[in-house]
Amino acid sequence: MTLTSLTPETEPLLTAVLPADRFRRAEDRYLEEPRGRFRGQSGLVALPRSADEVATLVRLCARHRIGIIPYGGGTGLVGGQIIETGPVPLILSLERMNAVRAVYPDENVAIVEAGVILADVQEAALQAGRLFPLSLAAEGTARIGGNLSTNAGGTGVLRYGNARDLCLGLEAVLPDGSIWHGLSRLRKDNTGYDLRHLLIGAEGTLGIITAAALKLSPRPAYSGTAMLVVESPAAALKLLTLGRDLLGDSISAFELMHRQGMEFLAEKLPDIRRPWDNPPEWCVLVEVGVTAGQNPTDALERLFVAGAEAELVSDGIIAQSQGQSDDFWTVREHIPEANRRVGSVSSHDISVPLGALAEFITKANARINDIGDFRINCFGHVGDGNLHYNVFPMPGKTKADHLAVREQIKRSVHDLVHELGGSVSAEHGIGRLKVGDLERYGDPAKLAAMRAIKGALDPAGIMNPGAVLRG
Amino acid sequence: MTLTSLTPETEPLLTAVLPADRFRRAEDRYLEEPRGRFRGQSGLVALPRSADEVATLVRLCARHRIGIIPYGGGTGLVGGQIIETGPVPLILSLERMNAVRAVYPDENVAIVEAGVILADVQEAALQAGRLFPLSLAAEGTARIGGNLSTNAGGTGVLRYGNARDLCLGLEAVLPDGSIWHGLSRLRKDNTGYDLRHLLIGAEGTLGIITAAALKLSPRPAYSGTAMLVVESPAAALKLLTLGRDLLGDSISAFELMHRQGMEFLAEKLPDIRRPWDNPPEWCVLVEVGVTAGQNPTDALERLFVAGAEAELVSDGIIAQSQGQSDDFWTVREHIPEANRRVGSVSSHDISVPLGALAEFITKANARINDIGDFRINCFGHVGDGNLHYNVFPMPGKTKADHLAVREQIKRSVHDLVHELGGSVSAEHGIGRLKVGDLERYGDPAKLAAMRAIKGALDPAGIMNPGAVLRG
Repeated sequence: MTLTSLTPETEPLLTAVLPADRFRRAEDRYLEEPRGRFRGQSGLVALPRSADEVATLVRLCARHRIGIIPYGGGTGLVGGQIIETGPVPLILSLERMNAVRAVYPDENVAIVEAGVILADVQEAALQAGRLFPLSLAAEGTARIGGNLSTNAGGTGVLRYGNARDLCLGLEAVLPDGSIWHGLSRLRKDNTGYDLRHLLIGAEGTLGIITAAALKLSPRPAYSGTAMLVVESPAAALKLLTLGRDLLGDSISAFELMHRQGMEFLAEKLPDIRRPWDNPPEWCVLVEVGVTAGQNPTDALERLFVAGAEAELVSDGIIAQSQGQSDDFWTVREHIPEANRRVGSVSSHDISVPLGALAEFITKANARINDIGDFRINCFGHVGDGNLHYNVFPMPGKTKADHLAVREQIKRSVHDLVHELGGSVSAEHGIGRLKVGDLERYGDPAKLAAMRAIKGALDPAGIMNPGAVLRG
Repeated sequence: MTLTSLTPETEPLLTAVLPADRFRRAEDRYLEEPRGRFRGQSGLVALPRSADEVATLVRLCARHRIGIIPYGGGTGLVGGQIIETGPVPLILSLERMNAVRAVYPDENVAIVEAGVILADVQEAALQAGRLFPLSLAAEGTARIGGNLSTNAGGTGVLRYGNARDLCLGLEAVLPDGSIWHGLSRLRKDNTGYDLRHLLIGAEGTLGIITAAALKLSPRPAYSGTAMLVVESPAAALKLLTLGRDLLGDSISAFELMHRQGMEFLAEKLPDIRRPWDNPPEWCVLVEVGVTAGQNPTDALERLFVAGAEAELVSDGIIAQSQGQSDDFWTVREHIPEANRRVGSVSSHDISVPLGALAEFITKANARINDIGDFRINCFGHVGDGNLHYNVFPMPGKTKADHLAVREQIKRSVHDLVHELGGSVSAEHGIGRLKVGDLERYGDPAKLAAMRAIKGALDPAGIMNPGAVLRG
């Protein structure tokens, strides 16, 4: 079934039903994405103010078979928010649905609209003496509806889980324009299929999240940060196991970094204070959050000592102030920006079982080396088995020099991930960039079930057409 | 579409394709359920030994339109495992698929088949120095496939989540007989719709779970238990908030008990050692699990002192030995058995937002009082907002004396739960007992989506027909 293109002729089908200020022409920001790989078509943006207005638009789009892109902060890295060709869709932005509807500190719950910026959710929790632990580099721009639609990950997953683990309930407009009122504040509710988890991670292809009930956490009384030098990724993992035995759930972040990332920082963002002039090959950024009566510095020292005794840690720095701790995090959070400035030939957001992580890095490096001379920046959320394994040109070359082997690099990394039982999209999702990967590596029975579900809930195929599943 | 009844004439359609020892006549244990409300029809039980054998049976059942009951430990409380009337189904028991396939201690992962008894999963984790935190009264009989299919709760939810939160991946046979090989050991995987969470909690109506990748946890180095006397459920909740601020995630259980439960224990199970001869109206069983370097008794004492200072706790006992701690848990775990021996008029497995919990108890008691004279035993996982609110006859009466008001009691409790934004099935599921409740209280858009999904994945309607959704 072909979709109807949104043109000056068909736009009045939509614009007639809501006030004029609910629409605007699509400016550049709606048509671009962070890595510049996709470019959208000019068209119409709708800016509804309520779930009812979203429902009105969806019903009309269903009736007239007009495609819809649910639009959050536009920070996605796999083109889920951009349709480059084919029938022009409506861009339905949630940016005006940005109210924190309620915070229940004693329940550890917040009810927020889909357009609230992630950092503002964090701030609302903080104001109530609570923690919303979802944290990622784009948190100043990304909106919570998009975070949920893509099941965002980030640095807090080790302790607090992915975005889906932080959501108790949803309000959403389904592809037929009905509104699911599912803003549950309940911790336990076994009344039927879990529609919440089906919409989370569906990247807007099964409906539009308009609000969410989020799970907050008590704030750790004190937190502390250290940079520890490890011999290898395998040593980092053993250190994490040791640390969890010693410190339990108090380890809230455990981020692996390779020397290459520090060197890119020195080259492209020299103003950022780095922990070492001569960085070690591998280090981990460890954060602990402890309760009253415990001392985070003591906890990190115990980890340091135990790691050294086990010959897993050879050196390290425990932050002695909030400023030093912030510096460590600034380093970690600017690695993606330094990467962007260098310009990768191919970037991979992969996960493998923890036990296969060291093997992955060794074998992937060898395969890339067989293809040519490259610089590899491998970093990420090692406690989650999630690495950003990014391949860069050597100094003096640019990514344009390697276009011919880009697909080969991606394929060899993804094949290896698949051989090791891993995922070719650990936290960024499928979008449009990885539709082919999903078809290649996905389980056939799961894919058939996904297509059946998509066909049942969105028979006209209007919801983010071409994302996740080929249209 | 009518299903084919499994009769001596149609049984050979199935029995011809697998060895004879894969089948037996349905003994009583397959036709009964714990509360004696449902009674199944005599028929055939299949006992497949592998996912391939399950798939063979499902394909044949789909072709011949024979209903299937996926059968675990038979401990469900809502009749999900029993079909009383209509076409006789195949009872497909997973009991011979009871291998722990692998344990990965460093990854905190175990791969187990669906027929492994929950206590055996816990034991396999323990043997590897890890914790599998799902814990409930029926753990010696319930099987993990059933626990996942019903998204079981229990006493560990506060810290570790429901069954769905403890599952990384599944192997399952879908209603068309295809096998989904989804035994992922990954913590992060954003490649398409979350089929795992759709099957978990679907009560066998969308497929048959044959194996699962389970999330294990580090074992707390030390644990401690206390019984604390609180003035009211509201005080219990405030104490929990205080405790989390003081002790963070180390509180692993927080169970509210009412005097009525202690009195039922004294009456029906007098050999069980009770903490008080004259029990208080309300008390909470608190468990903490702490890491090395911390002392659980100190932690509980701090909670006791802070609770007393805040006038939330008036008395209490901190267990001084493992034996005393076990005694406390024995009390808690035998309350359901004492209830059974008394014989409830109506039992309710409900949850409400934490902030509405005290209001629920006050109003529910008043509504029951308006209906007649009853004894109420209200206990449960108060940190999850999940109460078992059970109504019993006065001494000298039996539940048979109150059959005329049973429906009225249930309805008034469930109406109140719904008014307060709660769930009429917090952890037991819908089964066949609560199909009408789901239709009455469920969100219409969600119900329509559920029916669309059921129709898309199981067009012949063979998977646990009549459970969750009316056939």
